[in-house]
Amino acid sequence: MKTLGHYKEVFEQALANTHWPSSPQGLYVPIDYIMQLGGKRLRPIMTLMICDCFGGDHHKAIPAGLAVELFHNFSLIHDDIMDQAPLRRGQATVHHKWDLNTGILSGDALLILAYRHFESYPPETFSALSKLFSQTAIEVCEGQQYDMDFEQRIEVSKQEYLKMIEYKTAVLVGAAMKMGAIVAGAELEQQNLIYEFGRCLGIAFQLQDDYLDAFGDPNVFGKQVGGDILSGKKTYLYLSALEKGNAEQKERLLELYQTNDVSPEDKVAEVKSLFEQTQGDKAVQQAIETFTKRAFDQLDQTIITQEAKTHLLAFGRELMSRKT
Amino acid sequence: MKTLGHYKEVFEQALANTHWPSSPQGLYVPIDYIMQLGGKRLRPIMTLMICDCFGGDHHKAIPAGLAVELFHNFSLIHDDIMDQAPLRRGQATVHHKWDLNTGILSGDALLILAYRHFESYPPETFSALSKLFSQTAIEVCEGQQYDMDFEQRIEVSKQEYLKMIEYKTAVLVGAAMKMGAIVAGAELEQQNLIYEFGRCLGIAFQLQDDYLDAFGDPNVFGKQVGGDILSGKKTYLYLSALEKGNAEQKERLLELYQTNDVSPEDKVAEVKSLFEQTQGDKAVQQAIETFTKRAFDQLDQTIITQEAKTHLLAFGRELMSRKT
Repeated sequence: MKTLGHYKEVFEQALANTHWPSSPQGLYVPIDYIMQLGGKRLRPIMTLMICDCFGGDHHKAIPAGLAVELFHNFSLIHDDIMDQAPLRRGQATVHHKWDLNTGILSGDALLILAYRHFESYPPETFSALSKLFSQTAIEVCEGQQYDMDFEQRIEVSKQEYLKMIEYKTAVLVGAAMKMGAIVAGAELEQQNLIYEFGRCLGIAFQLQDDYLDAFGDPNVFGKQVGGDILSGKKTYLYLSALEKGNAEQKERLLELYQTNDVSPEDKVAEVKSLFEQTQGDKAVQQAIETFTKRAFDQLDQTIITQEAKTHLLAFGRELMSRKT
Repeated sequence: MKTLGHYKEVFEQALANTHWPSSPQGLYVPIDYIMQLGGKRLRPIMTLMICDCFGGDHHKAIPAGLAVELFHNFSLIHDDIMDQAPLRRGQATVHHKWDLNTGILSGDALLILAYRHFESYPPETFSALSKLFSQTAIEVCEGQQYDMDFEQRIEVSKQEYLKMIEYKTAVLVGAAMKMGAIVAGAELEQQNLIYEFGRCLGIAFQLQDDYLDAFGDPNVFGKQVGGDILSGKKTYLYLSALEKGNAEQKERLLELYQTNDVSPEDKVAEVKSLFEQTQGDKAVQQAIETFTKRAFDQLDQTIITQEAKTHLLAFGRELMSRKT
């Protein structure tokens, strides 16, 4: 097994060798810009790594990895427009650096270019990858719609929230891994086990993001602590606190989420305190553990070598041990 | 050969039987809305008809036709946002009836759903259709970018303009027809001939649209006469007039396109007069004839029966004989 760093290097090199057409510049310069903004490239790294795990050659998984990363960046461009976000990875978002039309059209083009990366595979593989990709892509759109819907709703169930994060973020992790298995020629059952591994790990990862937004170390987490609280986001943490709190705690929490009469610092502090009093924080940690365990159970059932399993377990544990 | 009306009926029935998921409504209700707005469905009708022309069964071409029509509507939703258009086919555009985010996301979903319609074909056909679709889709995006770029530029060549309309509208007509040939199992050479027939016919059709915008009968054309003139669109008609006019005519035309000191009625009248004086109108008619002839030459080289050719010629002539 190669190291994560090795896979990242291989992928970054492949990305650097991907040349966009020179014209029209208004379309391709923004695409080049967002693809160069960097990021951890975790999804395509997983595509390459899983391909090796199933006895394939990770170089053959590069086009699939590129498709996954292009799709991810398509969704970032369009989501940033919908969320009116000015910054992405510390730099101006595409629609802020250029304009709305550029954001829409270069996003559209990225989505189409993602599909084109499957074209280098033989028809059977092309068909399998493309179908998985479309299924995943439509779920990601549905997840984004649910996310926007939940902002407008008073009541959201934990089950609905879990489905939203599953669609919006976790299915793409599962699909990225399954693509590696498809390229390696793994059996369908094996493909599905690794998909479930990725999907469950993705859900656990997102739940942890929710937890860290409130309880992470701001110096290490790299985001403003309490961002979700201040934007009134109905996270698993919030929904658990509402569910487990007594009438008084519930009322106060609802109140705090609606008022602007409390200073941001005080609001974050009091909400966090309520998360703890109601043991909402414990509920999220339990859910993270449940999904992490479920992920590892799936992994355990695959036929990949013990060495590779240990590697993937370490990767998963590392992801999930971010206390920060 | 069946009549155009028959193919339209078959396609409309298939579209009516296409059920969108019930949830999330915020995503699928707008998709249902735009697909129900109607339209001539010329592209999918061509997919079905060409399939029959090459000895196929047009029922088998229905999924490909649906993909083409879904893609066309995806591009309408996003183009309407970019053009800030309030109306489409006399009804509110998606982003006006709902909002910007709905327009972006439901457009994205339509593009993905279009790809999914190829999934019912066996891998080889799926691969061929999907590749043609992606190639066409990226060209349509590039065409839209060129169109927006040209609005900001002073100088545009006729050649650049032709490439823009080719990409923005004509390649999808060619692709719609080629898909019918692919489904019918036609040889590659035949596929390419019918693609060229569609592409050239598409260019001729768009040039005629430019011509009719100035010289069409407003009662029959269904659009405001002189819309292109008033929005300062650098059409083939305008570019031809600039090219063929003397220094004085050219100067006056440039002036009229930039000023707001002349009333809309006077502006349209004087520009039209300049189009005629410079014989810009003749130049467009000549270009329409050239591309129509080129289309028919391609058609003539195909192996489809004389009866089917006559049918397609009649269809092409009918399209091109709109004097209105």
